[in-house]
Amino acid sequence: MKKIILLFCLSIVFISCETNKKPLNSENNFTSKNSEFAIVIHGGAGTILKKNMTPEKEAVYRAKLEEAIKTGYKILEEGGSSLDAVTKTINIMEDSPLFNAGKGSVFTNAETNELDASIMDGKTLNAGASAGTTTVKNPIDLARAIMENSPHVMLSGKGADTFAAEQGLELVDTSYFYTENRFNSLKRAKERDSIELDHDDKKVGFYDAEINNFKFGTVGCVALDKNGNLAAGTSTGGMTNKRWGRIGDAPIIGSGTYANNATCAVSSTGWGEYFIRAQVAHDISALMEYKGLSLKEAARTVIHDKVAKLGGDGGIVAVDKNGNMVFEFNTAGMYRASMNDNGELVVDIYEQH
Amino acid sequence: MKKIILLFCLSIVFISCETNKKPLNSENNFTSKNSEFAIVIHGGAGTILKKNMTPEKEAVYRAKLEEAIKTGYKILEEGGSSLDAVTKTINIMEDSPLFNAGKGSVFTNAETNELDASIMDGKTLNAGASAGTTTVKNPIDLARAIMENSPHVMLSGKGADTFAAEQGLELVDTSYFYTENRFNSLKRAKERDSIELDHDDKKVGFYDAEINNFKFGTVGCVALDKNGNLAAGTSTGGMTNKRWGRIGDAPIIGSGTYANNATCAVSSTGWGEYFIRAQVAHDISALMEYKGLSLKEAARTVIHDKVAKLGGDGGIVAVDKNGNMVFEFNTAGMYRASMNDNGELVVDIYEQH
Repeated sequence: MKKIILLFCLSIVFISCETNKKPLNSENNFTSKNSEFAIVIHGGAGTILKKNMTPEKEAVYRAKLEEAIKTGYKILEEGGSSLDAVTKTINIMEDSPLFNAGKGSVFTNAETNELDASIMDGKTLNAGASAGTTTVKNPIDLARAIMENSPHVMLSGKGADTFAAEQGLELVDTSYFYTENRFNSLKRAKERDSIELDHDDKKVGFYDAEINNFKFGTVGCVALDKNGNLAAGTSTGGMTNKRWGRIGDAPIIGSGTYANNATCAVSSTGWGEYFIRAQVAHDISALMEYKGLSLKEAARTVIHDKVAKLGGDGGIVAVDKNGNMVFEFNTAGMYRASMNDNGELVVDIYEQH
Repeated sequence: MKKIILLFCLSIVFISCETNKKPLNSENNFTSKNSEFAIVIHGGAGTILKKNMTPEKEAVYRAKLEEAIKTGYKILEEGGSSLDAVTKTINIMEDSPLFNAGKGSVFTNAETNELDASIMDGKTLNAGASAGTTTVKNPIDLARAIMENSPHVMLSGKGADTFAAEQGLELVDTSYFYTENRFNSLKRAKERDSIELDHDDKKVGFYDAEINNFKFGTVGCVALDKNGNLAAGTSTGGMTNKRWGRIGDAPIIGSGTYANNATCAVSSTGWGEYFIRAQVAHDISALMEYKGLSLKEAARTVIHDKVAKLGGDGGIVAVDKNGNMVFEFNTAGMYRASMNDNGELVVDIYEQH
């Protein structure tokens, strides 16, 4: 009898201790199913409202998002690397005037275009970033060249343009980045700036009337390839009317971009200052690695709790080492798309349902 | 009898579950005692060997470290803020030619001096950073002005110099940053560069013959004030012979500098590229917050495990919300000092014992 009681006691001890462990991992229930390879992109988050969009314009955005993601998907499907998928997918968006990156970059206060980009390799934790270039057609290519062909992680300004030239990357005349649309946004931002400067509204200068609110157009891509390697990349023109050589989160490793085969790959788009302060991309990875959260839970915590608490807004796309994909944003919309290894395509713009 | 057995069983369940929880917090045994306020500084890590140092030179370094830390200590003792202590302490080191920051900044490949700095407020998670300024006497003051008087976190290049001028910060002629010592280091680096370029040695160009090895002089300070607020700051001239507008970890929030009242304040000094890739400053905070490690354990993990595994070297100084102070480096030495609320002063240069 005593033995039975002892056995019973030990069983309870064992069971309750196992139960006790659970809370640590209870959020590891991935909601989406695993995928051998996967790709997720964004074309910027902001107050993108359906009422301000024409069906024609929406169709153009959707088509470009689809073209971009299918470019990366094809690379992954054929066994290519996540780094290649990220680079080539971002190239498509950089070459389009629709997004605030490459060709469609916004204007600075000085009526110039200063572009930022970064990329990270989850396998090696190598990274490359460039800030404030003015002649590089595809900044994500420069970020990658910095990662692969220099002893540095981050280059900036004229020096970064010089390095791009030495690397044989495609350079363009600064006029290449002129689009009427973006130039008008700058003019509106400056008008608003001069009117509202007295109100100490820190958002002043970032207003983009085109979508009736602040806009954080930035493009980004994250991918998992068939070899289990994660990569993340981000490219942007920054904020309309920016000045003083302002650098946002896009070229900051850990804020705008982060990839680690142990956890996930993340690309951010949002009010960059808050994304730096909240360490968005690395914090999502850290919550997974150290606290055992799922990618979805980690992304939610960072975007809806941490960033929102600071007063910032924006979103992220991410993929984890098991191919689980996540969109997460606290704005009205985010241009976005995803594809899994079955070729299932999701393209969306407005609020999550 | 049955009741006693049941009580016994429940006790075992309770005790064993408590024991089961322990591993999570077992490293929370702070080795140093808590301090109401505290300050820790570094003046750079590297292969600083006693055999290469004269007693006179060592005395000069020790005296300057003591002067710097006592400046911040006095502010904290009188009830001042950790932000003020960090700023004023770093000013002392920036104004000295001994350290690679401010006056003693190293030269770029183009024979210019391009300075970086950053600061973070653990209470608000506000942050400020500047990269590549050439006329600002005290870049840590600029980083603080960016944090407090601009809507941005990070400014760069000429724009950052312009902002500094608008803020009324002290500007100097670029010749202010000329020191014969540093210029000779650049010449030696260039000579070595031209000889060894064929060897694909990525360390080439960073060689500083002055201390017979690679040197990562950067200054930094972390502090906890009487109100429980943490702050961290870092200031540097970067790496000798740097080019292409290279930005290291010093002005990168989360890499060179991080402060969060929930955890700790960290300032890094090391081979910046590796400190960015390893997300050094934020990772130490994340290991404390999410994994329950002590500051010492977190710092050890990041410096000796993560950074070292990537192939990087350097160190950090840190203080946590309870006033526990940490020096941690994987180089032969690090100029460093600490003071607790009892006024106990530690000044050291070489290997930890």
